[in-house]
Amino acid sequence: MPELRRDPVVGRWVIIATERARRPNQFVHAEAPSGGLCPFCPGQEDKTPPEVFVLGRPAAPANVPGWRVRVVPNRYPALMIEGDLDRQAEGIYDRMNGVGAHEVVIETPQHGVQLTELTDGDVADVLFACKARVLDLRNDQRFRYVLLFKNHGSAAGATLEHSHSQVIALPVTPRQVADEIEGARRHHEHRERCIFCDIVGQERKDRSRLVYENEEFVVFAPWAPRSPFETWILPKRHESNFEGEPRERLAFAAQALRSTLRRLNAALGRPAYNFMVHTNPLRDAPSPSYHWHIEVVPALTQVAGFEWASGFYINPVPPEEAAEFLRKAAV
Amino acid sequence: MPELRRDPVVGRWVIIATERARRPNQFVHAEAPSGGLCPFCPGQEDKTPPEVFVLGRPAAPANVPGWRVRVVPNRYPALMIEGDLDRQAEGIYDRMNGVGAHEVVIETPQHGVQLTELTDGDVADVLFACKARVLDLRNDQRFRYVLLFKNHGSAAGATLEHSHSQVIALPVTPRQVADEIEGARRHHEHRERCIFCDIVGQERKDRSRLVYENEEFVVFAPWAPRSPFETWILPKRHESNFEGEPRERLAFAAQALRSTLRRLNAALGRPAYNFMVHTNPLRDAPSPSYHWHIEVVPALTQVAGFEWASGFYINPVPPEEAAEFLRKAAV
Repeated sequence: MPELRRDPVVGRWVIIATERARRPNQFVHAEAPSGGLCPFCPGQEDKTPPEVFVLGRPAAPANVPGWRVRVVPNRYPALMIEGDLDRQAEGIYDRMNGVGAHEVVIETPQHGVQLTELTDGDVADVLFACKARVLDLRNDQRFRYVLLFKNHGSAAGATLEHSHSQVIALPVTPRQVADEIEGARRHHEHRERCIFCDIVGQERKDRSRLVYENEEFVVFAPWAPRSPFETWILPKRHESNFEGEPRERLAFAAQALRSTLRRLNAALGRPAYNFMVHTNPLRDAPSPSYHWHIEVVPALTQVAGFEWASGFYINPVPPEEAAEFLRKAAV
Repeated sequence: MPELRRDPVVGRWVIIATERARRPNQFVHAEAPSGGLCPFCPGQEDKTPPEVFVLGRPAAPANVPGWRVRVVPNRYPALMIEGDLDRQAEGIYDRMNGVGAHEVVIETPQHGVQLTELTDGDVADVLFACKARVLDLRNDQRFRYVLLFKNHGSAAGATLEHSHSQVIALPVTPRQVADEIEGARRHHEHRERCIFCDIVGQERKDRSRLVYENEEFVVFAPWAPRSPFETWILPKRHESNFEGEPRERLAFAAQALRSTLRRLNAALGRPAYNFMVHTNPLRDAPSPSYHWHIEVVPALTQVAGFEWASGFYINPVPPEEAAEFLRKAAV
C-alpha cells in the first residue's frame, strides 16, 4: 500500500509509492518505448484495467475499439483506490494510507499522433473527459483535490509514447496550489478583487508578455517565470473551478492550449513538456479569489536540483523575450 | 543587469538572469567539459576574476598557485555585486535590481579529484572557506541570505568538471527556507522546542532512517523525502546559523558530509548530486526555533516537471529502505 507522509516542518505531503518501484528503469532514464504492443491502442483494451469513461462510442459493450477518448485506471498507480485514509502519528510524524485514484486519459486512438496534431475539437474532447472524471471523483468524499496533468516526451517523464494525460485524485491539496489559494485569498481580503483577474487585465493591457488570446482565454508568459518559456493559460472570465466550465468554454480552452503547444513546438523544436491544471479544491465552495488556469512548462533546462532544494529560481530568458518568440512562431 | 521579480500570487522571487543566456548550451544538455584549459587549475588564476579568499598560502601576492581552497567571483554571475536594490512596481508586479554576489569555491587545486576523494580535513577547509564568505558577505547590508550549494555532475547542473561549490548572496530569503523557518517558528510557539531538535531525537531513537552519526552530526533519510535517497545532515546540538559553528564542529560536519557522499557513491554508482545548506537569514537574530542543516539530493529521477508544477512529490523509495542501503554501503 502506498503511503502519504507529511513533512513535519513545512507540511508538504509526499507519496511514498513503493508499488511503482517495481517498474523497470526507475533510476535510469530510458527513451519512451515505440513500436511493440501499445496498451493504449485500439484492439488492446484488455491490456489496461477496465475503462471508467469513453467518448465516441456507446458505453456498452465496454473495453472495445471505436472510442475517440478513453479513460482507464493507471496500471502502475501512485495511489490505491481502495481503503480508508487511516491517519496515524509516528512520534512527531504524520502519515495516512495512500488512498486516491490514478487514471490515464488516452487522448486519441491513433498511436504516434500528438495532441498538437489533433483538431481543436479533439482537444476539447480531452478536456471534457477530464472534466467528467473530476465530476465523478468529487463524489468520493475521501478526495480533496484532483490533479490533471500531462507529461509529454521522455525528458518530461512520459514512459509511454501513445499520447495521454493523467488524473490523480488526492486526499490532500498539493502545496503549490495551496500556496496560490492562500496568496489569492490575502489579495482578495485587502482589495476585494481576484488577483488572477488583475493579472489578466494587466497582461492584456501591457501586451509585452501576451502570446495568444481568443474570446474566452488568454495565454501569456508570467511576470516571474521559474523556467524558460513557462506559459500560463487563464480564462478571461472569473471561474475558480476547472470543472465549472461549460463545454463551449472548454472548446476555447482547448484552442488556447493547442495554440500554445504548437507555438512551443515551432519555436523550440518540439520540446518535451509538462502541463498541469491548477484548480480550486473539491471540497471548497466556488471561490471569488481563486481562478483556475493551466501552467505549461517545456522541459528545457536539465535539472532543477538546486532550484528545487532552495525554492530559488534562476531563469535566463525574460518572459517578454519568450512571449515575443512564441507570438511570432509560425503555427 | 539581472532582475529579481516577485510572483504576485505566492510571493516567490525569481532571478531573470539575462547575462547567463549568452552561455553556450543553455537549453541543450552538454557533458561537463574535461581536458582543455581549466580556469580553476593552479597556474590559470588569471582566467578567473581576482580571488576573494584563499586557504593554504599567504593572501599576498594574490592569484598565484600554492592555495588549497580558492574562492573567486563567478565569471557568469546570476547576480551583480554593484548597484542598489531599486525596488520598483510595474502595475501589480514587483521587481528589484539583481544585486547580489555569486562566487565559486574551488575545493581543491587537483583537477579531476572529487570532494569524496579529499581528506576529511580538506572538506573541513571547504566548509571553513564557505563560513568565511558568509561572515564577509553579511557585512553588506543589502544582502539577507547566503545560499551555499554544490552541483556535482552534469545531470545535476554542473558545467565545469573541476570540483567546486557555489555561494550566492541574495537580497531576499529563498521561499523554501522561508517556509521552513515559518513552520519551525509555529512549532516553537506551541511547544517551546525546536522541531529539528525533535527530529534529531526521534531519528536517533528510532534508527530506521539513520545513515551515520558522529559526535556532533547526524545523517538520516528524512521522513517525507521528495526524491529517492534524499539525505539530511543536522548538527545534534541546536544551532540556527551555519556560520555560527566553530571550526572544530565544522570538521565533524565535513566528516558527516564526506561519509554521506561516499555512501551515495558506493550505493548508487557515483551519481550526480546537489547539496545545499539551509541556514538562518543574515539579518535575523540567532533563532531558538530554526536549525541549520545540509540537504543532499542525488539526481536520479529524470525530471520533476509535474512535481515542480504541483508541489506534489511521488517517491518510489521509502526512506527506511534508502537509509538501510546507505548504512550498509561499503565506504
